[in-house]
Amino acid sequence: MSGILVTGASGFIGRQVVALLAHDGAEVHAVGTSSMPPGPAGALRWHGVDLHDASATHDLLTTVRPDTLLHLAWYTVPGQYWTSPRNYLWVESSLRLFREFLDSGGSRMVGVGSCAEYDWGDGYCSEDITRLAPATTYGVCKDAVRRVADDIARSTATSAAWARLFFLYGPGEHPQRLVPSVVTRLLRGETAPLTRGDQVRDFLHVRDAAGALIALMRSDVRGPVNIASGEGASVAEVAETAARLLGGRVELGALPSRADEPPLLIADVRRLRDEVGWNPGFSLQDGLRDTVGWWRSRVVA
Amino acid sequence: MSGILVTGASGFIGRQVVALLAHDGAEVHAVGTSSMPPGPAGALRWHGVDLHDASATHDLLTTVRPDTLLHLAWYTVPGQYWTSPRNYLWVESSLRLFREFLDSGGSRMVGVGSCAEYDWGDGYCSEDITRLAPATTYGVCKDAVRRVADDIARSTATSAAWARLFFLYGPGEHPQRLVPSVVTRLLRGETAPLTRGDQVRDFLHVRDAAGALIALMRSDVRGPVNIASGEGASVAEVAETAARLLGGRVELGALPSRADEPPLLIADVRRLRDEVGWNPGFSLQDGLRDTVGWWRSRVVA
Repeated sequence: MSGILVTGASGFIGRQVVALLAHDGAEVHAVGTSSMPPGPAGALRWHGVDLHDASATHDLLTTVRPDTLLHLAWYTVPGQYWTSPRNYLWVESSLRLFREFLDSGGSRMVGVGSCAEYDWGDGYCSEDITRLAPATTYGVCKDAVRRVADDIARSTATSAAWARLFFLYGPGEHPQRLVPSVVTRLLRGETAPLTRGDQVRDFLHVRDAAGALIALMRSDVRGPVNIASGEGASVAEVAETAARLLGGRVELGALPSRADEPPLLIADVRRLRDEVGWNPGFSLQDGLRDTVGWWRSRVVA
Repeated sequence: MSGILVTGASGFIGRQVVALLAHDGAEVHAVGTSSMPPGPAGALRWHGVDLHDASATHDLLTTVRPDTLLHLAWYTVPGQYWTSPRNYLWVESSLRLFREFLDSGGSRMVGVGSCAEYDWGDGYCSEDITRLAPATTYGVCKDAVRRVADDIARSTATSAAWARLFFLYGPGEHPQRLVPSVVTRLLRGETAPLTRGDQVRDFLHVRDAAGALIALMRSDVRGPVNIASGEGASVAEVAETAARLLGGRVELGALPSRADEPPLLIADVRRLRDEVGWNPGFSLQDGLRDTVGWWRSRVVA
């Protein structure tokens, strides 16, 4: 009865989480469908388990019997995860995982949600105030899991938190997403075509997100907690900062803006800062410098 | 690709639904965990399947390939279903059932929810107006299934409705519930001790509920629909009507009232009446007379 089970451990965030935890010497059980990724081993044990497989999930939990669960796994293919029916499957599998975790004696669990649970008409997303009104299948499914998990926690007196992630960037991000697509074009000496880019978002470096998730997991803070910087930056500002770091140029307005893009999405981070006691390590400038450096070593111009 | 799949077919409501459907000559596939109950056969086919068993559910749906689904099955043991962890299991199994139903080519589905999804502070429960704020595990789980089912329907252009049941009574009800407990005591010549009984509820005879569910299923009405009479009666009025029919006596105020009982729970039935085109067949007086008659033949004084 010990150790931390991290699902989605080979993903964008999961890789950073298990690296940080292994560095700290924690007993980490990393779950992914792929084979063990390269990285720090130490007390890290890798479990190649498909969480949609009920009996494999049952066997994993009854074997490991983790004390703590951080459930990152979900369907996240860019451009598809907003609407994919695989979201429905993840509702089932997430609830089964929580059930198996508690049945096997677990005591602290952190589920991972999204700013997509909030009403995006509001702009400022506060855990206690902002209405929940997910407009996408992804958001509806995360919200439904949170509602049930919240009740499980309440009725079983389990210590449970729900991390709502905002806009992450950093090493290992999917090449189709904003920062990688801009940086890789610039590294190839091309200009990067963008929308007008005036939408303001709450960006956070993925290593900061991993640190915040671990801090939340190790705290006894319960309920929803935004994982974000609390500061807004426009998409144009992010792209232009990357361009400055690389000596390249972005072409704002070259692509049409999407009509349904909300102008502003900023997190209230008071719970994260005051209750969890966590603050970001990277400024946007430093975080982008780190990211650009990571891509520089991987892209052949 | 035909027929109607009814889950929970051996339950209080399910028995009435399959009897009515079989009487109409519909191709009915009745699903329950128990063996086939006595009753009309005709075009009725019985499937003894545990819906918590994923592969059995998959086999059922790929074999039957129903066109229409009415999903009544849930955990309903009186006094326990409000808080039981088995509600969580039914979220998983209900979503899996919907997924398998659509994957096998189904086109019309009706899920079954409850007035427990509404904010009970309101008293008047209207599908479009009353806030959803379930206060119990049962209500949270029904609400979560509805949220996901609603998104599945929207994103797959499936015709789906969500029936919200209120307070049912009638033949075959669990002996521990209000009407049977009063009627069986009176039939034994005892007085029936009750709370003050001033809470007003929306009562509906179970055969009416079955008729309304079938009417909703056969319509193309989508989204949440209250299944109720639209008329309020106090618990005292129900008990005293039963007592009058049996020439017995109820003792109001003999039991303590529960502090968390809302004074009023009445359904807005405009959607059911105007869009589905259904109205109750039983008055409360007639419904109770029918129920008392059913118990009379079963209780030996």
